[in-house]
Amino acid sequence: MASIPTATVGRLVTYLRALAELEEEQSEKTSSDELARRAQVSAFQVRKDLAYCGRFGTRGSGYQVAVLVRELRRVLGLTRPWHVAIMGMGRLGQALADYPNFDQYDFLLRGAFDADARKVGMVVGSMTVAHVDALPEAVTRDAIDLAFLTVPAGAAQSAADALIAAGVRGILNFAPTMIDVPDGVRVEPVDFLAGLQRLTFHMGARASEAAVSP
Amino acid sequence: MASIPTATVGRLVTYLRALAELEEEQSEKTSSDELARRAQVSAFQVRKDLAYCGRFGTRGSGYQVAVLVRELRRVLGLTRPWHVAIMGMGRLGQALADYPNFDQYDFLLRGAFDADARKVGMVVGSMTVAHVDALPEAVTRDAIDLAFLTVPAGAAQSAADALIAAGVRGILNFAPTMIDVPDGVRVEPVDFLAGLQRLTFHMGARASEAAVSP
Repeated sequence: MASIPTATVGRLVTYLRALAELEEEQSEKTSSDELARRAQVSAFQVRKDLAYCGRFGTRGSGYQVAVLVRELRRVLGLTRPWHVAIMGMGRLGQALADYPNFDQYDFLLRGAFDADARKVGMVVGSMTVAHVDALPEAVTRDAIDLAFLTVPAGAAQSAADALIAAGVRGILNFAPTMIDVPDGVRVEPVDFLAGLQRLTFHMGARASEAAVSP
Repeated sequence: MASIPTATVGRLVTYLRALAELEEEQSEKTSSDELARRAQVSAFQVRKDLAYCGRFGTRGSGYQVAVLVRELRRVLGLTRPWHVAIMGMGRLGQALADYPNFDQYDFLLRGAFDADARKVGMVVGSMTVAHVDALPEAVTRDAIDLAFLTVPAGAAQSAADALIAAGVRGILNFAPTMIDVPDGVRVEPVDFLAGLQRLTFHMGARASEAAVSP
């Protein structure tokens, strides 16, 4: 398999979401034009991105939705369930516990943790909040792979350290700070401020000579 | 100014966050190596990305933090305050109303709206929740530029339509669905599922022949 640029990975995820919509609409076939429209990129970009994932689609007759879904899931590592814990059960952690659609891609919420004893025992969504001291045992018992880090910035590094010590190897970091992790652990930031800044970049660009590549 | 690739925009945002940390530490100078370490990319990538923003830094002597912050803010459209509304005051909307750091980059929360009359009048952070019917008047009165869309998927398109009709031109979309917007309106998705999928792509890649470009 060719090496896949990070920006392409982000778009593959978007195509997979568009394909889920097509599946809901019971469409069996699609085209690069259709995917481009739904993902708000060019059809050329769609074809270029999908070429990283192998050869499918027949010239002029488009793509089989089911085949494309299967190949994108394979490329994105979505061929087995992933067990996810939520670390930090404030409003954001609670919102995530109730967020729909995670299980659609086999992301299964398997634990909710907080350092605040007053939150322990609280039921949110399908989970009961446990104390962080229970983390090592829970990670092993429930085969937890990934965690949402939803603690305040000041607590993020120590909470991440606790997750990693317990055996978690992937962290989706919602805390508004960067965290250091050892080799072998992956962090993806979910940065609301960064989303706003991408927005203002594009909005500002319309009013200046700056332009964005397709 | 040269055209700036979308992936570069995302990294510029990350460098700006790293620079904010350096400012907090009262560092006056930095280097591509230092920024690379904090942003978890290569120093070559940092130099290449910053080259899109103009010429600064003297060979061998690094960058002035304050100069770099000013230039990145200019490129990212952060030279004036942006007024932001929150549309949908469930747990996620409430979490965002309390999220720190937005005002650090002059994103000023200026309204909180919900279609549920029972939420109207609720005080969250510095705001009192208003009914969506009040949106058109509020957008004009408070010069609201941007909105967080934090409603359920099924309500996302109609809520976005209401925002756009009221004059909002940029939407950070937290709803787990894609929305259609007219030309002249920009949407940036904040997709928790996509974050998980980027994570599993990178974690899966270690166990297969797939590799990620630097």
